[in-house]
Amino acid sequence: MESVMHHCHRKLPTLLSRTLFKTLKRRHLNLTIHTVSASSKPVIPTPLVSRLFQPSNLREGQDGGDLTCRSQRLMVQTGLIHPSNPGCFYYLPVALRSLEKLVRLIDEEMHAIGGQKVDMPALCSAELWKKSGRWELMGKEMFRLLDRHNGEYCLGPTHEEAVTELFASQTTMSYKKLPLLLYQVTRKFRDEQKPKFGLLRGREFYMKDMYSFDINEEAALHTYNSVCQAYRRILDRLHLKWVQVQADTGNIGGTLSHEFQLPADIGEDKLLVCGNCGFSANIETMEPGQAKCSQCQTGKLTESRGIEVGHTFYLGTKYSQAFKALFVNASNVPAVAEMGCFGLGVTRILAASIEVMSTEDAIHWPGLIAPYQVCVLPPKKGSKAHEATQKAEELAQSLGNSLPNLRGEVVLDDRTQMTIGKRLKDAKILGYPFVVVVGQTALDDLASFEVVCQQSGETLFLSKDGLVDLLSTVETI
Amino acid sequence: MESVMHHCHRKLPTLLSRTLFKTLKRRHLNLTIHTVSASSKPVIPTPLVSRLFQPSNLREGQDGGDLTCRSQRLMVQTGLIHPSNPGCFYYLPVALRSLEKLVRLIDEEMHAIGGQKVDMPALCSAELWKKSGRWELMGKEMFRLLDRHNGEYCLGPTHEEAVTELFASQTTMSYKKLPLLLYQVTRKFRDEQKPKFGLLRGREFYMKDMYSFDINEEAALHTYNSVCQAYRRILDRLHLKWVQVQADTGNIGGTLSHEFQLPADIGEDKLLVCGNCGFSANIETMEPGQAKCSQCQTGKLTESRGIEVGHTFYLGTKYSQAFKALFVNASNVPAVAEMGCFGLGVTRILAASIEVMSTEDAIHWPGLIAPYQVCVLPPKKGSKAHEATQKAEELAQSLGNSLPNLRGEVVLDDRTQMTIGKRLKDAKILGYPFVVVVGQTALDDLASFEVVCQQSGETLFLSKDGLVDLLSTVETI
Repeated sequence: MESVMHHCHRKLPTLLSRTLFKTLKRRHLNLTIHTVSASSKPVIPTPLVSRLFQPSNLREGQDGGDLTCRSQRLMVQTGLIHPSNPGCFYYLPVALRSLEKLVRLIDEEMHAIGGQKVDMPALCSAELWKKSGRWELMGKEMFRLLDRHNGEYCLGPTHEEAVTELFASQTTMSYKKLPLLLYQVTRKFRDEQKPKFGLLRGREFYMKDMYSFDINEEAALHTYNSVCQAYRRILDRLHLKWVQVQADTGNIGGTLSHEFQLPADIGEDKLLVCGNCGFSANIETMEPGQAKCSQCQTGKLTESRGIEVGHTFYLGTKYSQAFKALFVNASNVPAVAEMGCFGLGVTRILAASIEVMSTEDAIHWPGLIAPYQVCVLPPKKGSKAHEATQKAEELAQSLGNSLPNLRGEVVLDDRTQMTIGKRLKDAKILGYPFVVVVGQTALDDLASFEVVCQQSGETLFLSKDGLVDLLSTVETI
Repeated sequence: MESVMHHCHRKLPTLLSRTLFKTLKRRHLNLTIHTVSASSKPVIPTPLVSRLFQPSNLREGQDGGDLTCRSQRLMVQTGLIHPSNPGCFYYLPVALRSLEKLVRLIDEEMHAIGGQKVDMPALCSAELWKKSGRWELMGKEMFRLLDRHNGEYCLGPTHEEAVTELFASQTTMSYKKLPLLLYQVTRKFRDEQKPKFGLLRGREFYMKDMYSFDINEEAALHTYNSVCQAYRRILDRLHLKWVQVQADTGNIGGTLSHEFQLPADIGEDKLLVCGNCGFSANIETMEPGQAKCSQCQTGKLTESRGIEVGHTFYLGTKYSQAFKALFVNASNVPAVAEMGCFGLGVTRILAASIEVMSTEDAIHWPGLIAPYQVCVLPPKKGSKAHEATQKAEELAQSLGNSLPNLRGEVVLDDRTQMTIGKRLKDAKILGYPFVVVVGQTALDDLASFEVVCQQSGETLFLSKDGLVDLLSTVETI
């Protein structure tokens, strides 16, 4: 919408202008700098379920015939995503909260290992991809387009070329600056033959892609290790079950590669795990029919399935050689950097965690990335407990205000035309970690609340203090 | 990098695998859920200037002949951005910090007026744009492409069509859900004829675009007003001088429109401001040669120039009619929603604020979005004050730890092979709001520090307590 440069001279209606100009007049006259105090931070109101844009599509009579897996069905059904073009989705407000938390978690772990966040263009010139030899290799999976001057571009499915070009443009990079770990969290584009399983195999998706530059192979493998460790920490902090398997390097290249897989029957990857030594591999990397473990020479390999959520590659000098990505070594001589690259499917982790943790009819979230931690249920309008409504509103407000970890994490289900039971059922489907029912007992001298802890399945009856104690321990990000 | 499905059966080197498997064995054997305590939050080390990926390109001998304005020159020179394809840039780590702060500020103000954040696909099907009539209208400015099935797409330069389609898909939207304000912060694509001025007119840029749905014109104009107010708050909190002008609606459509402009000589927009009543307009909306104000009938219009950073439109039913975006009104009858749309150029605000606030040779940031608030300078290696080095490291660490507003905001310029003077000069160019020089006096019983406050130009000598007091008031986001 910026600068739309049409030179027509239309008359504008004055209806609103007058009101606007009344309030703006002062500012228009004096273009002075207005001093704004710290107190001008706006107050964020408690989110109300009745106002959330979270359409419950399936319950409104659509059938969802093409919903091919649990996560896709649940995510569409509960208004987390909405289908757009094939393999493309609208991320609706509740899902986006979850996604932003996941990005914060990833940022935290990437910074902890010295990662620096950048952002590279989605439009990648064909020239770069021809330099690496992948312009042909990528085939139809790559979206290609021309600009108005007939320049050839693709929409970056990954950014090895772009980042190596960036590194190479720094002509006097000292070895003291290495290891250099650059990463981004951006939308990637792949023209999948058959997009399916919702966010699990889309044509537009968010990926965290990190690229490392090191002085030699030993240092590069050390970096490789530290990124793998960060990936394991991320998955652990999400309380996901994972397995790290030996993997194929495919058209990324390089000589060493691992995938991080979440065991799941709908997973598209076949894994072989040794019952003896724990060796694990993607079946792609094994001799066909291999049944005995090559690592311990004795164990039997068992096949299972997984959803790939991360992929690490030790690249060596495949790209740095082609792009002349050099640094100046300790002897003041230019040398080719050793590279690694490391992907995490961000939107895929979101969907995959719903896939593997949920039941058939209710979402379970990794606690850290649940969109909201607490849902407060006021009594039904016109019911005996109706007077407790205000208590519920105060509670929702005060929890968010008094517990720093719950700021913005408490939602009020104000659809008081519905029974508590119906709203509790909805809350269960949406998987809020804690649901607080405010009823008659909230009006007692020693007010108490019914608290449903969805992760443990327990229901507790707690005083306000007890509730605050319980919720103060909730980890948020 | 996800799921590269090549079915070659390559042998992987075991060099690293063994180490990895040693540490991973336990996990591989038991795919149990590992409980992670809250204390597992990683420690983020103090950022070191020597390790920041912030290449100072121009000082390394390149000339920058095509750098057309102050912000572009300063941003390239200080390693904030790096050019890629024409009109496309790499956002480097320091700039990205600033950009992320700006997004947080915008999020805060959008939430305060009830905005809900979503994320829509960049790939928009031609069908949608044909429905609105803009497929032809947009001309060469739109990037167009085919998918592997020859489906026609564009890369969304804006999302009126997509959001209206989303709204329309909710067939039983109640009037009680309105106003509905959906917004996103995503990358936009426009094939500019002549990209120029760095981030000010790029082909890929970040925009905050909000879309409103209301029950009638009156409510829509009320929403329009509240978004304009939020825009004014955002620009005020950035301490930017701005002017809100009557604007043309161009190919977005609608009947009412305003632009938010930052007065600047390099601005591409010509503005007319009345010296009497404060009426302001983009010259596009006026009769050619008009010199007298139409608002107050007496004032003289003076021409100036501005950089457009925001644009608001009252759309009426242009899109909602075409897409049948209906809601169910209070009489239970379907009615067409009244729409507004509201853009903020996010990367443009970043560059424009540098453009208008900086001097020819030093960046000045809006305080709230300065990438780092404080730079600590330890003494030169081998100098008399050398023993204070450790004090500097401790100070950098402790400021970030003890002042919540400064968490992650303190950087240590550890390039101690350079003199204090040279590093102070760099710090001035980079525009850290506060630079703390740690010298001999830091070793005194009553340690003191030299503090350069770049915004006021003052230099203070403060005790540790005095420094903490001063910095505790710094507003961060």
